[in-house]
Amino acid sequence: MLHHHLQAHRAYLLGEIHKKLSRESIDSLLVTDLPTIRWLTGFSGSNARLLLAEGKVVLFTDFRYQEQVRRETSGIATVIMKENIARELSAGSWRLGERMALQADHVTWQEMQLLSDGLKGRRFHPVTSFFDGFREFKHLAELEKMRRAAACSEQVLEEVIGMISPGSTEIDIAAEISYRHRKLGAEKDSFDPIVAGGIRSAMPHARPTASKFEPGTLIVIDMGCMIDGYASDQTRTVALGRIPAEARRIYSIVRKAQQLGIDAARSGMEAKDLDNEVRSYIAAEGYGAAFGHSLGHGVGVEVHEAPRVGTAGTETLREGMVFTIEPGIYLEGRFGVRIEDTVVLGPQGAEPLQGFTKELVEL
Amino acid sequence: MLHHHLQAHRAYLLGEIHKKLSRESIDSLLVTDLPTIRWLTGFSGSNARLLLAEGKVVLFTDFRYQEQVRRETSGIATVIMKENIARELSAGSWRLGERMALQADHVTWQEMQLLSDGLKGRRFHPVTSFFDGFREFKHLAELEKMRRAAACSEQVLEEVIGMISPGSTEIDIAAEISYRHRKLGAEKDSFDPIVAGGIRSAMPHARPTASKFEPGTLIVIDMGCMIDGYASDQTRTVALGRIPAEARRIYSIVRKAQQLGIDAARSGMEAKDLDNEVRSYIAAEGYGAAFGHSLGHGVGVEVHEAPRVGTAGTETLREGMVFTIEPGIYLEGRFGVRIEDTVVLGPQGAEPLQGFTKELVEL
Repeated sequence: MLHHHLQAHRAYLLGEIHKKLSRESIDSLLVTDLPTIRWLTGFSGSNARLLLAEGKVVLFTDFRYQEQVRRETSGIATVIMKENIARELSAGSWRLGERMALQADHVTWQEMQLLSDGLKGRRFHPVTSFFDGFREFKHLAELEKMRRAAACSEQVLEEVIGMISPGSTEIDIAAEISYRHRKLGAEKDSFDPIVAGGIRSAMPHARPTASKFEPGTLIVIDMGCMIDGYASDQTRTVALGRIPAEARRIYSIVRKAQQLGIDAARSGMEAKDLDNEVRSYIAAEGYGAAFGHSLGHGVGVEVHEAPRVGTAGTETLREGMVFTIEPGIYLEGRFGVRIEDTVVLGPQGAEPLQGFTKELVEL
Repeated sequence: MLHHHLQAHRAYLLGEIHKKLSRESIDSLLVTDLPTIRWLTGFSGSNARLLLAEGKVVLFTDFRYQEQVRRETSGIATVIMKENIARELSAGSWRLGERMALQADHVTWQEMQLLSDGLKGRRFHPVTSFFDGFREFKHLAELEKMRRAAACSEQVLEEVIGMISPGSTEIDIAAEISYRHRKLGAEKDSFDPIVAGGIRSAMPHARPTASKFEPGTLIVIDMGCMIDGYASDQTRTVALGRIPAEARRIYSIVRKAQQLGIDAARSGMEAKDLDNEVRSYIAAEGYGAAFGHSLGHGVGVEVHEAPRVGTAGTETLREGMVFTIEPGIYLEGRFGVRIEDTVVLGPQGAEPLQGFTKELVEL
């Protein structure tokens, strides 16, 4: 049922995208970024180009994906390429029109040049972030996949938290996360899990090490998976044993900051104002300089996509957008805390896709 | 010890690369592909640019990697970027010279344009595959890492083959492979493991499914890991129980073909001639059309790199190159067999980095 809805939604999106092309006086656009192609057609192969021209859509891939493209797409004309895309476009009778666009942010200089050479020195119109305004609004059928991804990863989070002990290492837990994601039916992790204990919890992008967890320290776990092409993203910080009073205080500031973010999110506000509400609170508590990254980012077919929810986020938040709310406080050389949910913005405000407790868990 | 050698080797490489730049009348080159930057400097962060100019080297990254860059590199000037690379280059007093090159195959059209705008409309010289001729020759210290990656993955292969049964699924085994790679100290898989049973063994790039293995069928397992930035790559095809005579016959053809490839590899021959030796044998056995991909590819800091060992491989194979030899026969809708080792070309010919049996294993 929902699958059928997604097909209908994609047909609607293609119509809207063609309208945008027309508004911008673009006759044709060659889509070169794979997540957008998957989002728009369902095709998940590693070699794909999508031509949008004159209200039509053509998917290009190679012989390896002949069967897969049939299985994953419906109602989309497909060309199995014998040569590279430049040759295919120059050989066929495609109506590319006067003004053909390329995704400047998703095409290499080399491919742009090959296309130009193949099409008799044609000069292209560059577009950037062209699909953001479509991708950031999630259809119910997409939300359903995102909820499944979130639920899968939460179950894994619950399982692996039970495995943290003074004998286990960051790598042990990270390996368990990836393993359990797949065993529970995820395609893969949506990003390499972060499991950062002790002083490494103060590094927002720490890579798991072979270090054993030490009692009396905090552990940041940031993880997510992909299900049916949609990502989840969540962070919890837990304590191994009893932690010092200052760490407990900072945990409770981050927890309040994160709840503040969820409560403050409203359709119609600018993203940077949401970031600022949370940032001001953390600054008022004396830790402004220790919150060095953005409040959040959109999530969908990619784990990082529009909207950007940071100090420079001029976009207006709207119903149907899905983004993270993930404040953190990082005290270099000591410890760090981050708490993150992915929320969908609805008429009543932000609704988290995750429900794992945000009370301090002391293992 | 070997680590020290690698430092010295990198200094030597930088000298040779600067000579090549000079021969090609290039005053400066901005390196934008991360695997090459890691290969040349040891830095493994996700945001990096490397400027080669006037015999000097400058690494650009951001504040997140301040500590990591210190730990991973030595003797390389580093700039922690406050803004994007275009701003950094336009603000500093870099001696970029008249003719500045970009990697056309590793820079987006957008970044090229941003750099051009930032540097007052400067026009760049495009280079492609610029580092292939250096990266494909492996130093002893690199080979040592590759042997460790190969050994790690072979141990995992041995373990997971023991877990294949009529009750287990492709996803089960794939998840075990990734899990065990990391538990044994690998950074990660070098690519998503392929575990393809029954009719899916006939798809060279099959993704693991939740299908249970069926007795009397073949299972292709293609896997590898990364250790210290270097990849391994290996394939074995095993049988669950007794398989039909035709499948056994095809297994033995592929096995002979693969050994033929190992025995025929010689420094000084063209890559396509090696491909052809193996391809001719498979064709003579009546399965030419069923071997649809190249014989092999280089392996190093990326699991696919130069040299290409296929029908179009005009490169000459030389001592010190590392590449795969992986013939396969795929009968669509029925079954497939692929056997692959990664070999290093030495004075005596090709030496496989892997030693797992190529006798037909019937589980």
